[in-house]
Amino acid sequence: SEKLKRFPGLFWQTVWRVGRDDPRRVVHALKVGLSLTLVSLLYLLEPLFKGIGQNAIWAVMTVVVVLEFTAGATLCKGLNRGLGTLVAGSLAFFIGYIAEKTGHVFRAVFIGTAVFVIGTTTTYMRFFPYIKRNYDYGVVIFLLTFNLITVSSYRVSNVLKIAHERFYTIAIGCGICLVMTLFIFPIWSGEDLHNSTVIKLEGLAKSIEACVSAYFNDVEKETTQEKSSEDPIYKGYKAVLDSKSQDETLALHASWEPRHSRHCRYPWQQYVKLGAVLRHFGYTVVALHGCLQSEIQTPQHCRILFKDPMTSTTPSKSQPRLFLGSNKNQATNM
Amino acid sequence: SEKLKRFPGLFWQTVWRVGRDDPRRVVHALKVGLSLTLVSLLYLLEPLFKGIGQNAIWAVMTVVVVLEFTAGATLCKGLNRGLGTLVAGSLAFFIGYIAEKTGHVFRAVFIGTAVFVIGTTTTYMRFFPYIKRNYDYGVVIFLLTFNLITVSSYRVSNVLKIAHERFYTIAIGCGICLVMTLFIFPIWSGEDLHNSTVIKLEGLAKSIEACVSAYFNDVEKETTQEKSSEDPIYKGYKAVLDSKSQDETLALHASWEPRHSRHCRYPWQQYVKLGAVLRHFGYTVVALHGCLQSEIQTPQHCRILFKDPMTSTTPSKSQPRLFLGSNKNQATNM
Repeated sequence: SEKLKRFPGLFWQTVWRVGRDDPRRVVHALKVGLSLTLVSLLYLLEPLFKGIGQNAIWAVMTVVVVLEFTAGATLCKGLNRGLGTLVAGSLAFFIGYIAEKTGHVFRAVFIGTAVFVIGTTTTYMRFFPYIKRNYDYGVVIFLLTFNLITVSSYRVSNVLKIAHERFYTIAIGCGICLVMTLFIFPIWSGEDLHNSTVIKLEGLAKSIEACVSAYFNDVEKETTQEKSSEDPIYKGYKAVLDSKSQDETLALHASWEPRHSRHCRYPWQQYVKLGAVLRHFGYTVVALHGCLQSEIQTPQHCRILFKDPMTSTTPSKSQPRLFLGSNKNQATNM
Repeated sequence: SEKLKRFPGLFWQTVWRVGRDDPRRVVHALKVGLSLTLVSLLYLLEPLFKGIGQNAIWAVMTVVVVLEFTAGATLCKGLNRGLGTLVAGSLAFFIGYIAEKTGHVFRAVFIGTAVFVIGTTTTYMRFFPYIKRNYDYGVVIFLLTFNLITVSSYRVSNVLKIAHERFYTIAIGCGICLVMTLFIFPIWSGEDLHNSTVIKLEGLAKSIEACVSAYFNDVEKETTQEKSSEDPIYKGYKAVLDSKSQDETLALHASWEPRHSRHCRYPWQQYVKLGAVLRHFGYTVVALHGCLQSEIQTPQHCRILFKDPMTSTTPSKSQPRLFLGSNKNQATNM
């Protein structure tokens, strides 16, 4: 019951912290709510409903599934979805066309076989590294749409009409998603990638600085060792170490964003490479940190001997900021 | 055209390599194909079709979306989906019940407001770390189902009947997924997690061994430096460094698998902790590797002095295998 009593407090604390850490999350939540309401109007308003009918459901589905946090992620998912649906539709009609020429029983066998073969090969293709990285979602949608159309075309005759009507509502859903993601408080993956790279560089610089100062002034070492999670050295390199998958996802989504490709292909892959180098540097900082915590230590009077050359070559906090700061402005203004 | 000529060769090479790396992928692809064919039979066979009708579509959808590579992932997704659908259905009926009491125009405004509020709060809740980690998919399904039911209940009167019919077909789809994932060549996340931990331990041991041997016999150093991707030291620790997210996903899915929880709660989180320790050790190996590649080197006659104590304490290749080998058999036989 003690835990239950504390639950509302913890809950509101989480609500507040999630919003404070990144206020864009609140904006994104409002955008989703607004898009869903707009799409529901297709259904709720009498005149619009008469034209579109039951198929408004598909607009709702598109908005829920496609609208993502960043513009790049939304575009990537939307295009994957569109491409998957188109390819699946074409293939399903082709197979339906062949099946139509044959008898009723043979037709069922033919459709069953096609479902098995396409299902198996498509699922297997999802394991190919290139497809998994770029088109995984599109392949799932392809499989889904192909099965829905093939199976329902066996009983329903006017599949083409249904597909035609659905296409319009899906296009409306996609349109709302595009407007929301590109024009109303857009959130860019590329900006996130840039900022996280800046933060990682700064964190590493702080770590190195803290390492050097801890090595040469070991008076207060005993007190900091206890609370290792608040150690400035650990705090500096923590974000760098496991950043690989996040970097790669951001770079993938950023490459879909139209903002930078007007002038030139913005080199997002270079950020991924820079991230790999930063991680490698981070590993060395971890090793340095381990040296500081080991039991066998160099006596203080030896350390003094190379204090001056060391402290003069250590990067100051402001250096990485200078290094990437100008680029940062460039990137956000371009 | 040179590239186009080589494409079929590259394609078949990828097909072959993907299957050889993990033959369970072929099994999984066949399982998906078989499940889809079984579900299509609901539609293709006359007697079954009469009972189920158009709703067979939902069984197809369930199989495509829920059936995942490992048993844990399938269970996690299926339960998330079921839970999300149930909660969304209850809430939608509650809101529909309130809306029914009011006039036609006010009802539309009420439904629109509900869609906006639920859409915004649900999307915001997806950013909570606890929900993102465990129930992200369930929350998306909740939002989707809630909107579909609320919006369509405004026009259609027999929503309860539709929901009832759909429930059966979704249950059939889930049943096929469960049988396929748990009883026909099951693939366990827990086993994957255990095996990857064993492989990482062995890789680190090989790296350390290679480091020590490279340090004391630098005759062949020049030749190995060129092809750094085939360097045995790099090959050993490569898999360890970026394993965090993979470990956590496998442990999360493994905790859903029923196999081990019969006897006791199997400590999957301990594997995650062991993985963190292994990564930390891996960072030290990276630093050691860096020392081997640096320009300033200890002369060979100094190295000889501590060769014997070093080589006697280095783990041999067989040691980690012994350490986890017995556990491995325990885990697979349990």
